Amino acid sequence: MQRSDASSATDVPSGITVPGTPMMDSTAEKSQSESPQKDAPTTKSKSSDYTYDGVTGWRRFRVLRPCRGMYYDIRRRLPYYLSDITDAFTYRTFASTVRMYFVNLLPALAYTLDMQRRTDGFYSVNESLFASALAAMVFSTVSAQPLTIVGITGLISLFNYTIYDIIKIYDVTLYARFMAWTAIWAAIWHWLVAVWNLCDYMRYVTDFSSETFGMYVGIIYMIKGVEELVSLFDSFGSVDGYLSCVIAILYFGTVYALEKIGSGVLAKPWARGLLADYAYPIATIFWVGFAHIPGTIKRANISTLPISRAFYPTQPRSWLIDFWTLDVKWVFVAMPFGFLVMLLFYYDHNVSSLTAQAKQYPLKKPGGFHWDFFLLGCTTFVSGIIGIPLPNGLVPQAPVHTDSLTVFETDLQIISTEEGEGNEIRRPIVRATGVVEQRVSHFLMGLGIIGTMTGPLLIVLHTMPRAIFCGVFFVVGWGSIESNGITKKLLFLMSERRFVQQAEPLLQVRRRKIWLYLMCQIVGVILPVAISQTIAAIGFPVLVCVLIPFRWKTMPRWFTVKELEIMDDLTANNEVVLASFGGAPKLPGSSTADEYGLERRFSERKTGVPRQRAGSHGR
Amino acid sequence: MQRSDASSATDVPSGITVPGTPMMDSTAEKSQSESPQKDAPTTKSKSSDYTYDGVTGWRRFRVLRPCRGMYYDIRRRLPYYLSDITDAFTYRTFASTVRMYFVNLLPALAYTLDMQRRTDGFYSVNESLFASALAAMVFSTVSAQPLTIVGITGLISLFNYTIYDIIKIYDVTLYARFMAWTAIWAAIWHWLVAVWNLCDYMRYVTDFSSETFGMYVGIIYMIKGVEELVSLFDSFGSVDGYLSCVIAILYFGTVYALEKIGSGVLAKPWARGLLADYAYPIATIFWVGFAHIPGTIKRANISTLPISRAFYPTQPRSWLIDFWTLDVKWVFVAMPFGFLVMLLFYYDHNVSSLTAQAKQYPLKKPGGFHWDFFLLGCTTFVSGIIGIPLPNGLVPQAPVHTDSLTVFETDLQIISTEEGEGNEIRRPIVRATGVVEQRVSHFLMGLGIIGTMTGPLLIVLHTMPRAIFCGVFFVVGWGSIESNGITKKLLFLMSERRFVQQAEPLLQVRRRKIWLYLMCQIVGVILPVAISQTIAAIGFPVLVCVLIPFRWKTMPRWFTVKELEIMDDLTANNEVVLASFGGAPKLPGSSTADEYGLERRFSERKTGVPRQRAGSHGR
Repeated sequence: MQRSDASSATDVPSGITVPGTPMMDSTAEKSQSESPQKDAPTTKSKSSDYTYDGVTGWRRFRVLRPCRGMYYDIRRRLPYYLSDITDAFTYRTFASTVRMYFVNLLPALAYTLDMQRRTDGFYSVNESLFASALAAMVFSTVSAQPLTIVGITGLISLFNYTIYDIIKIYDVTLYARFMAWTAIWAAIWHWLVAVWNLCDYMRYVTDFSSETFGMYVGIIYMIKGVEELVSLFDSFGSVDGYLSCVIAILYFGTVYALEKIGSGVLAKPWARGLLADYAYPIATIFWVGFAHIPGTIKRANISTLPISRAFYPTQPRSWLIDFWTLDVKWVFVAMPFGFLVMLLFYYDHNVSSLTAQAKQYPLKKPGGFHWDFFLLGCTTFVSGIIGIPLPNGLVPQAPVHTDSLTVFETDLQIISTEEGEGNEIRRPIVRATGVVEQRVSHFLMGLGIIGTMTGPLLIVLHTMPRAIFCGVFFVVGWGSIESNGITKKLLFLMSERRFVQQAEPLLQVRRRKIWLYLMCQIVGVILPVAISQTIAAIGFPVLVCVLIPFRWKTMPRWFTVKELEIMDDLTANNEVVLASFGGAPKLPGSSTADEYGLERRFSERKTGVPRQRAGSHGR
Repeated sequence: MQRSDASSATDVPSGITVPGTPMMDSTAEKSQSESPQKDAPTTKSKSSDYTYDGVTGWRRFRVLRPCRGMYYDIRRRLPYYLSDITDAFTYRTFASTVRMYFVNLLPALAYTLDMQRRTDGFYSVNESLFASALAAMVFSTVSAQPLTIVGITGLISLFNYTIYDIIKIYDVTLYARFMAWTAIWAAIWHWLVAVWNLCDYMRYVTDFSSETFGMYVGIIYMIKGVEELVSLFDSFGSVDGYLSCVIAILYFGTVYALEKIGSGVLAKPWARGLLADYAYPIATIFWVGFAHIPGTIKRANISTLPISRAFYPTQPRSWLIDFWTLDVKWVFVAMPFGFLVMLLFYYDHNVSSLTAQAKQYPLKKPGGFHWDFFLLGCTTFVSGIIGIPLPNGLVPQAPVHTDSLTVFETDLQIISTEEGEGNEIRRPIVRATGVVEQRVSHFLMGLGIIGTMTGPLLIVLHTMPRAIFCGVFFVVGWGSIESNGITKKLLFLMSERRFVQQAEPLLQVRRRKIWLYLMCQIVGVILPVAISQTIAAIGFPVLVCVLIPFRWKTMPRWFTVKELEIMDDLTANNEVVLASFGGAPKLPGSSTADEYGLERRFSERKTGVPRQRAGSHGR
């Protein structure tokens, strides 16, 4: 019953025979039988207690019933804690650990390069590793949603150096203490949001805003990649610059090609699976090696990741920031900045949890957004007072973790045709048969990062050309742009009409309306991108958050419910996830959550579930 | 009746409805009605007079009936001469002229860079332009097959500098005269082959050897691109080298992407058509401009194409080589070299004519291989005594000319399915509805090259970075590798079996046999590639030509006729082309030419005719 809507989404139309593993559901149930299915029914009836729908009187106000969300989050999730460890003994946990180590670490170091350059070295490699390790330890052990990988994002890097630019106008020595107070305020705001159960509103997040946000992030990353390359010309000269361009482009091409092959139908499923799982490690090891080939390339002496003494802050200071010495005036100036950080994390962290538990994954274990947001407040506080970048949920990488833990089966779909081509057409259909839901891969990845903080491994990091990180920006950024719903709708509008399948749901919406919908999204992308190059960049969380009420208040006036049902979709509609928000959102018109996502269901029927940065694990 | 086998190849299976332009045949006939259809029947009955099949007595020996092939070639083709001019007044002629100017000129200059470096400047830009212009003027006006573009190939460049390496061992001052004599001998061999009607044996060329040759050429070009980039590091330093790598890679990516988009279903057909037609000019203009952006890039002062005084030989000499002063000893040493040149051209030139008139193009005007080979002897002679590279048919570019003149229609194929996806699947099918067969585009392109030889346009050429030409090597080389039958068979063998359409003809052949067939081809690729880096490189024409008898004498012992019918195919099977060879070849077993090409017909039914370097002209 938990899987009711998932199974309707992958409904096999009659007339299409699916050989291979027709026992999909029973397989999934079998693996589930090892988890505490016995607890589930009781937990479930309890978890549905957390709701405000249909409640009257003072009880309907969330702020008047503090900590209720967190209480239910813990109560709902705690019974699964043991299985979070026992479920982990599969190969997928290992593959996931390796993949996430690279997918988490490489972008974090990429943003660090950017941050380091723009904060005159206040935040550097040691700080970023520390922040990633701290977050991984906390969230892998005590969070309610261990699938959500928490770490350094490009947006916090943007935030940090924008504040640096602002503080520099007054007195640059204030920066460390000011950032500490920003974090302290942000932590307080986090705790308030968690206590007042305000994460509930995240259930209204639809693809409209998460696609817009994803596109914004993708574009920012592409820009960062180029900026970083340009800065190499300025700092290290033309030879370094051009060689770095070559490596960055080819690194991007390598990861992209490996992931494409991994998601194709070439070779055996296990071989494809290896390529998809280890695309990052393979490409990274190859291109780091390339940069050290003796001769012309070695002589170019390409610039590498700068490191400093292990376990010590990069700048000559103690880990604890003396935040108590800051002027009271500045303490209060930090308050709105803290609010903006909270707003960014409110959207960014919760959306990454949502996408890590998105509809295409057959998840069984419940979510817990309030509790995790409270925890995020704690890590924010600690990170602030020791002067490391504030970690939060990684939007583009979050679903990669779940993806790497998902057991995909590539089934064969045979479509009988009336005549021609041997009376059939064969097509691969990807099916997610189950997710290895556990917290061990997250924990091991954290241990890996702690290991990386030690001297010997720091020296290994030091051999990595900066160019690799520019390539990482391109891979992550382009991945976010290419798979984005905005891109897909644009391609639909540009396609020649006669080649579009008639069953395509978008054909039911007038082109004018699709354009209008897209223009709303594109404006939502352009505005934050435009200000990201200025000091106003710290305001971008407001722009991002405004999209949610805009979607529910303004857009229904311009579109019919039917049109929105086709073009938009809830970002999470898994019942076990929605439980943490107090149930499915109340939608306008007569529509229910199940009526959304026509477009997705159409595409899933054709090619199966979409995969994150490709990865046909085959088994 | 001329089109009988073409129409069977594009036979629409019943049950598949093709809306759009079902009147394809009648359209093609209509355009044909402007050409001298009235002459065709008489010409045709005459042209079938040229055959040796079923002839007995001394008449069956080709060498005893000199000039017979040339006589019939002219007699067959002459009636079409007027229409070769009058048929040209269409937009396609213009588009073809522009496209061929770039597709001919850019690779020619690329090979020239290579040749210039390795012959210490004996052959340079002026020589290559002269050779291209000469060939274009002669072949566009008096050849029997004006679709075959004749110019500078990478193989003649390989030949020229290998001989240079050999002569250098003795006395480098002999080089010019020795090359002249090589060309004179080659010309004599050409004339003998033409007079003795020996081109007839080209009708036995199948995809087995032309794919092998195409793969060999593709690999050589990729190697040349890399070599050229490496040489930039040595000659101009690291900044130049790395910047050139960046430009070469991105130039390749640009042309490749433009051609991919041009062959897709995005945008209107006319817009796609423009992209496909002008991919080279667009990419070239963009990246030449990029290399001159003021600032860091301009300061890198990237190395560009070297030019010298217009219309003069690059080295201080008169155009006419004093070949009569060469020692008699050396004159006779040149004879076997001349024979090897002839062997190379025998294969290379005739195969380019074959592929320019390949089965997928609905050609109406007859071929004339004997006459063209005689003409090639003439241009070889002239080029030899004035010391310019010997032009011949361009293998990878030859079909591009016909392709650029072909009117393609992208039809919609609707496959009714029993159920699911709105009961239908829509697929674009590309159909060649007619070819603008004329000699004006070839002539105009030649005029363009003559224009390029003048001072002002030489200066424009001088702005082009050498890196562009490395990119050209990659584009041409990769185009030859990607679309190659060897690549396709390898991909088939690597594909997971269950996703292969059951109607796929290759499934009827045992995998072991496909591997054996591929191994024969791969050995045929590896051997010439291996020797191409040594002085033995001049022997490669022998290796290439040996593949034809190997295919007909040895391979039938290893494969059944049925297996060869599936895996192999005649390179040309158009009746009007085969007429010049004395009709279709006598094939072993009971099979006829029509029984070959199962694989091709299967793929044509699925996606339509293959296009050369992409180009969905839509209209």
